Parts: sequence; C-alpha cells; structure tokens
Amino acid sequence: MNSNPSNVMALTSTASNKKETVCIFGTGDFGRALAYKMIQSGYSVVFGSRQAQISSLIPKGAEVLSHTEAAQKAAIVIIAIPRQHYNFLLPLAEVLHGKVLVDVSNNLKLNQYSQSNAEYLAQLIPGAKVVKAFNTVSAWALQSGTLDASRQVFVCGDDKKAKQMVMDIVRALGLTPLDQGSLLAAQEIENYPLQLFPMWKFPIFLSLGLTAFFFFYCLIRDVIYPYVNEKKDLSFFIAISIANRICPVLALILLALVYLPGVLAAIIQLYRGTKYSRFPDWLDKWMLCRKQLGLVALAFAFLHVLYTLIIPIRYYVRWRINSRVISQVLNNRTDPFDNTSAWLSDSYLALGILGFFLFVLLGITSLPSVSNSVNWREFRFVQSKLGYLTLILCTAHTLVYGGKRFLYASSYRWYLPNAYMLSLIVPCTVLVVKFVLVFPCLDKPLTRIRQGWERNPRYSE
Amino acid sequence: MNSNPSNVMALTSTASNKKETVCIFGTGDFGRALAYKMIQSGYSVVFGSRQAQISSLIPKGAEVLSHTEAAQKAAIVIIAIPRQHYNFLLPLAEVLHGKVLVDVSNNLKLNQYSQSNAEYLAQLIPGAKVVKAFNTVSAWALQSGTLDASRQVFVCGDDKKAKQMVMDIVRALGLTPLDQGSLLAAQEIENYPLQLFPMWKFPIFLSLGLTAFFFFYCLIRDVIYPYVNEKKDLSFFIAISIANRICPVLALILLALVYLPGVLAAIIQLYRGTKYSRFPDWLDKWMLCRKQLGLVALAFAFLHVLYTLIIPIRYYVRWRINSRVISQVLNNRTDPFDNTSAWLSDSYLALGILGFFLFVLLGITSLPSVSNSVNWREFRFVQSKLGYLTLILCTAHTLVYGGKRFLYASSYRWYLPNAYMLSLIVPCTVLVVKFVLVFPCLDKPLTRIRQGWERNPRYSE
Amino acid sequence: MNSNPSNVMALTSTASNKKETVCIFGTGDFGRALAYKMIQSGYSVVFGSRQAQISSLIPKGAEVLSHTEAAQKAAIVIIAIPRQHYNFLLPLAEVLHGKVLVDVSNNLKLNQYSQSNAEYLAQLIPGAKVVKAFNTVSAWALQSGTLDASRQVFVCGDDKKAKQMVMDIVRALGLTPLDQGSLLAAQEIENYPLQLFPMWKFPIFLSLGLTAFFFFYCLIRDVIYPYVNEKKDLSFFIAISIANRICPVLALILLALVYLPGVLAAIIQLYRGTKYSRFPDWLDKWMLCRKQLGLVALAFAFLHVLYTLIIPIRYYVRWRINSRVISQVLNNRTDPFDNTSAWLSDSYLALGILGFFLFVLLGITSLPSVSNSVNWREFRFVQSKLGYLTLILCTAHTLVYGGKRFLYASSYRWYLPNAYMLSLIVPCTVLVVKFVLVFPCLDKPLTRIRQGWERNPRYSE
Repeated sequence: MNSNPSNVMALTSTASNKKETVCIFGTGDFGRALAYKMIQSGYSVVFGSRQAQISSLIPKGAEVLSHTEAAQKAAIVIIAIPRQHYNFLLPLAEVLHGKVLVDVSNNLKLNQYSQSNAEYLAQLIPGAKVVKAFNTVSAWALQSGTLDASRQVFVCGDDKKAKQMVMDIVRALGLTPLDQGSLLAAQEIENYPLQLFPMWKFPIFLSLGLTAFFFFYCLIRDVIYPYVNEKKDLSFFIAISIANRICPVLALILLALVYLPGVLAAIIQLYRGTKYSRFPDWLDKWMLCRKQLGLVALAFAFLHVLYTLIIPIRYYVRWRINSRVISQVLNNRTDPFDNTSAWLSDSYLALGILGFFLFVLLGITSLPSVSNSVNWREFRFVQSKLGYLTLILCTAHTLVYGGKRFLYASSYRWYLPNAYMLSLIVPCTVLVVKFVLVFPCLDKPLTRIRQGWERNPRYSE
Repeated sequence: MNSNPSNVMALTSTASNKKETVCIFGTGDFGRALAYKMIQSGYSVVFGSRQAQISSLIPKGAEVLSHTEAAQKAAIVIIAIPRQHYNFLLPLAEVLHGKVLVDVSNNLKLNQYSQSNAEYLAQLIPGAKVVKAFNTVSAWALQSGTLDASRQVFVCGDDKKAKQMVMDIVRALGLTPLDQGSLLAAQEIENYPLQLFPMWKFPIFLSLGLTAFFFFYCLIRDVIYPYVNEKKDLSFFIAISIANRICPVLALILLALVYLPGVLAAIIQLYRGTKYSRFPDWLDKWMLCRKQLGLVALAFAFLHVLYTLIIPIRYYVRWRINSRVISQVLNNRTDPFDNTSAWLSDSYLALGILGFFLFVLLGITSLPSVSNSVNWREFRFVQSKLGYLTLILCTAHTLVYGGKRFLYASSYRWYLPNAYMLSLIVPCTVLVVKFVLVFPCLDKPLTRIRQGWERNPRYSE
Repeated sequence: MNSNPSNVMALTSTASNKKETVCIFGTGDFGRALAYKMIQSGYSVVFGSRQAQISSLIPKGAEVLSHTEAAQKAAIVIIAIPRQHYNFLLPLAEVLHGKVLVDVSNNLKLNQYSQSNAEYLAQLIPGAKVVKAFNTVSAWALQSGTLDASRQVFVCGDDKKAKQMVMDIVRALGLTPLDQGSLLAAQEIENYPLQLFPMWKFPIFLSLGLTAFFFFYCLIRDVIYPYVNEKKDLSFFIAISIANRICPVLALILLALVYLPGVLAAIIQLYRGTKYSRFPDWLDKWMLCRKQLGLVALAFAFLHVLYTLIIPIRYYVRWRINSRVISQVLNNRTDPFDNTSAWLSDSYLALGILGFFLFVLLGITSLPSVSNSVNWREFRFVQSKLGYLTLILCTAHTLVYGGKRFLYASSYRWYLPNAYMLSLIVPCTVLVVKFVLVFPCLDKPLTRIRQGWERNPRYSE
C-alpha cells in the first residue's frame, strides 16, 4: 500500500522530533484559516495550488507548491475545495495513493447530494484513505481563536489509523475529536452544521400552538365577553393580564408532558411484561425531547414569575386598589380581615415560589457542564424525584390559586371555564397514574421488569 | 506473555486499517448497549455466549459465538456479566491468558464485597490484564445517545498498555476516559455510581437543622407569642412571613460559614508558623465543601428574594396598607414624610440587591464550565475578593434592615431577640477576624508562610 | 541522540506493563503535589535532591536520590525549582542529554524576564528536549483533588514526541492538555496564570466610566435641581432611584455597542468590496470583546429588574401612593380610569419583560458548556437573530416608557434631557443602519462578499 516513498517518510517522521507536514489543497478561506491554526500548533503546512504564491493572505510560514509537489511532501492532504471541483483530483490519483485525504466540505442544503461529499471523494480516489473532519468548525473561529461554539470535531472514516492521525491533529489544535465510526456517517456529519435546533422543534411548535389556543381562549373570556356584556374596553389586558394567564398554563401543561411519557412507558411495560420490546416510535421521540420540553416549560414559568412580580407596578392595579380604598372610605365601610383569604393567598404564593425554585434547580442541573459532573444515580434523583416534587408543588399552586373559584358561576363565561382549570387536566392525570404506579402491587413487578434479567433469564449468561 | 497467537494478531491489527475486534461476554442489557455503540463507532463486535444466536436484540452486525471462539478473536474481552457468575470464567483461563479483561460491573450497595469486582476478577484469572471501566455509564444512555450525565469513564488497571487500549475505545465512543491509577482504585470506582451527592450531605443536613431551629424560634416569637398575649391568630404567617425570616438568616449564616474555615486556617498557620503541618480533619473536610455551602446559601438567598418580591401581592399586606390609609383618613391625620425612614428603607434594599447580585455572580462562576475557563488567579479573585464583598454587603443589608430596632423592647418577646440578630453573630465574627488579619503586622508573616519556601528553606532545592 | 542507555530503557518501557518512572527535581510544594498525583495515577516517581530523604512531606512511595541518579532513572525530568536556581543544572548537562525536561515554573510579574523560563532552560541544556507544562495548575488543587478552575494544561515544546509524552501524563492525571505549539509560546503560557480577566478590562472600564457620567448627570437632574429650585431634600434617591436610572441606560447602551461593530464591519466590507482586507485594529478588538460587553449589559439589566421589582416595597413609594389616595379622598375627587395610561403602562412592562427574558436566554447560551453543544448555525441564530430581537424589544421598552414625556418642558431641567433619552441614541442608530443594510440592494452584495469566493475567484482553486 505504501508504494509512495515520501509517504513512508512522512508517517515515520510523526514520531521523530521533526515538524509534521500537512498538505492543504485549496487556498480559500477555510484552507488558510486551518493552515494558520496548524502553523500556530507546530505543524509545517504546504499548500497545493495551481498558481505558486498567489496571495498575501497565505499565513506566514506556509509554502505554496503545485498540487503534485505539495501532496508528495505530506502523509495527510486536506481537501479544502468545494465538491464541484473534486474531479480535478482525478489526474492526481497516483500521487494521492495511500495518502490520508481529509474532506472538510459542507453543503448548502440538508441532503443536497444523495452521496455524501466524503464518500464521493473516496469513490473518486479509491487508493486514498478518506477521513471526514473539521466541517463543523468555522474559519473565522479558527483564525480569531474565539472558539465559543463547536469545539467538537466529528471525525469518521473507514481506516482506523488514518482516522487516528486526523484526530491527533484535531487534538493538537485544541479541539475535541469525536469518532463517529465509518465513512457511512459522513452524510450525517455533513448535515450537522445545517441543523437548526432539531430537538427543539417539537417542543417549540407545540408550545406555539398551545399559546395561540389559550390566547384566543382568554381573549374571548377576558376581553370580548366583558365588551359584549358590559361594554367595558379591557383590550389592554392583552399585554400583561392575558400573557400572565397563558404562561402559567403552558408551564404546567408542558411540565406534565415531560412526565407523561415515563408514565405511559411504565404502563406499556407492565402490560407487555417485558422491557425488551420497542416502544412505539412517537413515544421514543417524545422521551428523547423531554429535556427540551422541560426547559420550554421553565421559560414560561420564568415569564410567569416576572409578569406576576410587576403586578403592583401596573397603572391598572394601582388605580383599582386606590379606587377600592376610596370607595370604602366614602361608604364608611371597612373590609374586615379574613383569615381564610390570608391563608389561601399566602399558601398559593409559597407553593408557587417553592415550585419555581425547584424548577430552576432542575434547569441548572440540565446544563451540560453540571449534568456531566454528576453520576447517573444523582441525575435520576434530581430529574425524577425533584421533578415530580416540582410537578406536585406547581399543581398544588394552581389548585390553591383556584380555591373555591370553580364553584362560582362567574368562572364560566359563555360556559367556558377559567384557563387554569383546563391546565390542571394533564398534570392531575399524570400525578394520579403515577400515584397508582407507586403502590407495591404494581411497583414491584415494574422494578423487576426494569432490572431486566429476573424476568428474562434467556438473555443473560 | 503473548503465548496466545491470536492475541498477537489482534494487538498488531490495532495499527492496521482492518476493523479492531472486541469480544463481549454476556448478552444482557449493558453488553448489548455497549456492542451497539461500538459497532456504530467502527468496531467489530463478537459476543461470547452459551447459546449461539439467542436473541433478536443482539445489535445488527455483531457475531455470537461460544466463549472460547469469541475470546480467541479479540485482544480485549469485556466481561458484562454479574460478579456472582464470574467463576464460570475459570475453565476459560487459558484462552483468556494475556487478554485485556474489562470489568464493567457494578454492585447494588456501597462496599458490598470486601474485595472489588475487578480485583476479584484479576485474582480468578491471574494471567489476564484486568482493567476496570464503563461502570459509570448507563446502558440506556449508550443506546439512545443522550449522554446527559456522566460522559466521564473512570478507568483503572495495573497494566499501563491494557489501560491505554481501553481508554482508546472509551475515546472512540465519544466518552472521556479518566485514568484513576492502579486496580486498587476499583473499589472506589465501583462505589462511585452508588453515591448520592456525598459532598452535599453536610451542607444540606446543616441547613435542615438550622432551618428547623429557626422555624420553631420564629414560630414562638411571631405566632405563639401574639396568640398567647393578644389572642391574635397569625398562623398564616407560617407560609410566607416565617419562611422569609428563615431564608435570609440561613443565607447569611451559611455564607459566613464559607469564609470561616479560611480564617481559622490562617490563625492556625500563624500560630504554628508553618503551612506544612496538616489541618485537623474537620477543618479539611469543611474547606472541601465550601463550594456546596455557598451554593446552598445562594439557594436560600434566591428564595428570600422571591419571598420579598411577592410581599406587595399578599392579601394580608394589601389589607394592612389599605386599613392604615383608611384609619388615617378617618382620623383626619396624615403621616408626614420621614427622610430618615426613606434613607434606611432605600439603603437596606439597595445593599440587599447588590449583595444578591454579587452572590449570583459567585454562583455562576462556580459552574464547572465557567470555572474551567478561568485561571487560578481569576478564580481566587472572584471567590475570595468578590466573596468577601458579598459577605460585607449582605451583613450591612441585615444591619441596616435592623436599624434601631434592637433598641426597642418589643424586639425581645419572651426575652428572645429577633432572628436577624442571631444571624449576625457568625458573619460579624468572620469579618472582624478577617479585618484584623489584613493588618500588615499579621498579613506579612502570613503571606510569607503561605509562599512556603522563605520560612522552610530545607524543603526546596 | 539517545546516547544515554537508561533513557532508551525508559522510553521503551512506556509500552510495557511496568510502571513508567518520572523524575522530579525539587521537593518544594509543587513538586510534591505533582508527585502525589502521579503516584495516585500509577506512575513511579523519583525525586532528585541534594540531601537524601529530607522530609516527611515527600509523598509515600516516592524515592529520593541524588540529582544524577534520579535523572538516570527516567526519560522525563520535571524541573520544579525556581528559575533563579536553574544554573545548578549545568553540571548535570550530560546526564540530562536527550531527556525530556518539563518546565513548570511561573513568574511573579507579567513579562518578568525578556526570555521565558522554558526558553532559558532550553538554552542552558541544549541537549535536552524542553517542554513547558503544568504551570497553570495549582499545587493545592492537585493535592486536594478539587480541580474547580483550570483543568486545562497548556503544553508547548519544539519536540513533537517529547510533547506527546508530557501530554500523555497530563491526560493520565485527569487534566486536559492543550497543545500551544513550539517553545516560542512559553512566554504567553507563563503570563497566562498572572492575567486577571484581560478580555473584561475594556467592557468594565467602559461601563465604570459611563456609570460615573450618568450618576453625576442624574444627580444634577434629580437631586441638585429640586434642592436648588424647590428646597426639597431628595438625597435618598441615590440609593435606588438614581441606580435604577443608570442600570437600564447602561444595559441598553452596552447592548447596542455589542451590535455596533458588526454594522460598522458590514459598512467597511461594502465600501471596500472585499472581506479580505483587515479591519482596523480597534474594530478587531471591539469585535473580540462583544461577548463580555453583552454580559456586562446583562448584569445591568438584571440589576434594573431587581431595582424595579422592589419599587412597591420602598417606604417612599408607599408613602407617596398613600398620601395621593388620602388627598383624593379629602378633596372628594377620584381620578377616572385612563385607558391610554393602562395601555402604555402595560405595554412598556411587557416589552421589558420579553426583552429581559431574551437577554437571559442570550446569556445562558454564552455559557461555555451550552455554546459548546450547539453548531455554528445555531450559535449565530441565537446571538444574531435573537440578539437583534432583544435590542429591538429593549429599545421599544425605553421608547414606550418615555411615551409623550419628551414633549413636556419638565423633562428638560436646566436644558438637560432625561437620561433615558440619551440612552436611545446608540441603539436607534444601530437599528436604523441595520434596517438599511437589510434592504436587498445592500444585503445581496454583502452576502456575496461574505461568501468570499464569488467576488474573489483568484483565491480559491
């Protein structure tokens, strides 16, 4: 395989104290940025180009040679040119034989070509060892040193040793290589930089849909109803009052939706009596975006807290309180202190504060760096035990907020119940089913099913 | 050592471009999940099992052979079976000679066996090189790809090369290997996944104890005393008023306890005149959990802020303010504006806000990813300089809040002072001692002691 | 080169299962801490010292020999002694020939010597391969295991293989090596631990300057003016009222300054018609500290939120509201409800809440661990799209807050406009220019310039 003598040289020189040479085809933006960073990290870089010494932009210390000469100098050739120009490599097939070719290209659209760029390259130059890498890194970030996003470099390739050589370079540049396996993974790696929060799509669209529904629901109840019945213009409710009805409702529903799939999975496992059959696809997908659902719920809870805390600064609220005081004085009638109201008011506020506090705690532990530093038992303790406690506190907060209100006829304008009543359906269901599942007669078989080996001895040794 | 020819083959093939083969004993949950991930990362996996082709759950691409055949195909054998079945390996001792055996097992209890599973395995098959790894990773996480917690894989083993081979696999799977040294560390590694926030135990139990104490203290002063003396039912104070007394008190005391051990250590070092004698054990332990103490203090401060901000929404507060206004009107007497009250009210609020702001800043810098990206000088600047500033601001906030209140007889119900007065003892002590230590006559010798080499020239070259 | 036979032995033994031996010159604090950690990670450590067995502080398991004997035992010699004692190594030049010397030293001041310690060492012992490493790690952290800050170890050296050997040790100790290239980087690495937030200096000094300016500006308008004109003592405004004027003003200006350099860069690129000419230095520096500017802005926004939320608890505010109610009652005149005021009040609060919410989101995504887990497209989407949305919301919040106030003569005390009007200059400019740049006639050529290859075909293949 190593018919090329310069290649052998290059490979062995890795171990000596001579600087390793890397060849880059293409003197565009990305090629130059990569060269700049490599020279900084102690590599010797040679560009392969049609014209020698083309530009003052070439980083200091890099050589520019013809493609053939450049390739002969190094064991690794980085192909930093667009896919549509790959066929110019065909005449170089012989000199590239046995070399490690690094495909750094990206496409403009998801799945732009049926075959990934790296696989196309491997097919063009069958004698070379193609490795996909560096496509997730930005040229600007390499050059400026501000690697805020994506320190991770996904690497894939069929040749283990070639991959190792590329991963060593990645590490030397201060980046983190992630081995993604064989060249089949190239398509996925090329799609990665084009993705825009794929895991967040479902939670965000769901919450947008629910927001729209509850907005119109509250608009009808709180703005249109008083306008039709009492000719009162309460349109300014849209800015804060209605927003502060939607936020807690969505926070509670979305939080309950985080725990619903776990409950459904438990029911399915109990029903099937095994954990070794796959869940339906929708349930799998749902379970994988629970973290995102929870964080969107936290965002709504955060907004709810802010909307609630500015209540006493609102002109409307101050005017209402003042006018009530004035009317009390003018009527010479003072409201007596009501102990039950004090209890209800204080306890729904306290429940809300504690619920929000635990919610924030859950959010903090889902930060990558925090969750990375806890073990699985701790992670599950926080996300499951503390999570259910949060759900219980938030549901109780909503129930106590409602108090006896659901008994009043005024809560059902045009037969529409208050939005908070609707929001209680999902969390109460989840909590009731979870409560049933905790009973020993159901919990014991479930635990045994989840430990796996007891009920299914045929799968273990 | 390498009497086994297939072993030599396997070892050398690591460097060639052929896929490396890994053997897994045990087709249980964890073995299959590991195989799935390994195949994805470009390894070739062969299962060793009593029955050939037992299950449809075996990941696609993996082979299932007898134990002997499977072990012969690979240099690395992963033992994914429970410890109690380890003795079935005894007849395979010959084929396992010289192999790298990876022990991935976990126990159900801390220190379940006097000897760790990995050491037990090494003793059973003395000819093999046993490496402990992967026990901290969850099977579910491997398979679903959601490695939220514990990307870290602790690795230990007596054979450096064997360990290196296992660490290469760990890295290839996208995980982070952490070398923990020789096989003696196996017990600790096996205990790790069973731990539940060991560093947090002391701060949490301490704060629970203090919470209970101050709860009953405030209950007596604020609920029982007015009930006994004035027959007033203020039981609703429990939900918010008393909670909002406990939270600031605990936040301040715990924050002071973060800085107390440093002050004690300085006194000990000054007294002994050297830094090369060990601190008492309790002080060492206390110093190691300062971060956790500080974060619990921050949690209480956060709750205090929330409890304070909802004050104007409370039914009780609104009723009290309104009834005061009404009584003023009815008595035709208006309270004049008091400049001193305005100054006191505004400055204690401002001090609290600034203190809380710095407290949050301290909390953010203690996030692993943030503290990882600062150097030691910066970390110490934030945690020590900003930390003391936070303590000073929070203590001043409490002092100004108190104002002249400590002079009123009404602050000593049943001779019990207000809770906020008790909370000032520890922080004031810490600040006074720290202030004394800052004087040059004490600071200079302390600095020299801490730099070490001046006072103890015998230890350096 | 490998004239020293023990050296060859040591090098080859790396691959065997014998423990690798590392030699440490210097039994001071850092040397011992390093030895302690290395022994824990499975290395065998031998100290080189003038006296044999000097101290009980030497970690258990380490040997203490003469310098010559110790150096002969290992391929790697760690020089843990201060730079001023380096010349004692001169007589050992022969035994150190071909060894890897690791310089772990730090200086007390930035650029203390014209030549870095590591380069000085390399010049003293030209036959050795000098590698700079470990200087960023604290002895205390190594020994106590609490590696909160700086898990990163910067490594540099001229010999690739020597560097690799040192990086393997770094990894084995559970730390992250970062290859910084040749020994020329040593000066920078030695300066690193002495730095104190260099990227934060400009944003912090800028905000301190602006804070001082706006403090005196508001002091004149809000405290001195009423005192001079109406003899009213409003000095207590300093604590909260004025602070709550400075914070939003600074948050808005600093946020706008985050987006101003991008707009300037676009104008320069459009004017020059290329992206391949360097920006002026001040613009480059400004662009590199945008993240820090944004976070300082977020800190001011956070303080503004806290200052705003405690408004209803202030003695002054409560007194003012009560006295207004009382005066209404006494005059038997009630303010009618004003729908426009309700709309304005609610919408500026709602805009502020949404702006702050997005601001916090921006802050969270700039946490290293979060930004590390998104790709470039996602990072740019958040920082650019959401960032501009935040700027628009915050500017609108300020505009609506002002309302018709800018038409009142009372807003211009001593011809000085309200502070909020001044704060609108920069953000409005940025938004207007950005709005102009979005027009297709400017956006299209700009996009083409930024993609680079279309307009500058000579640079690519």
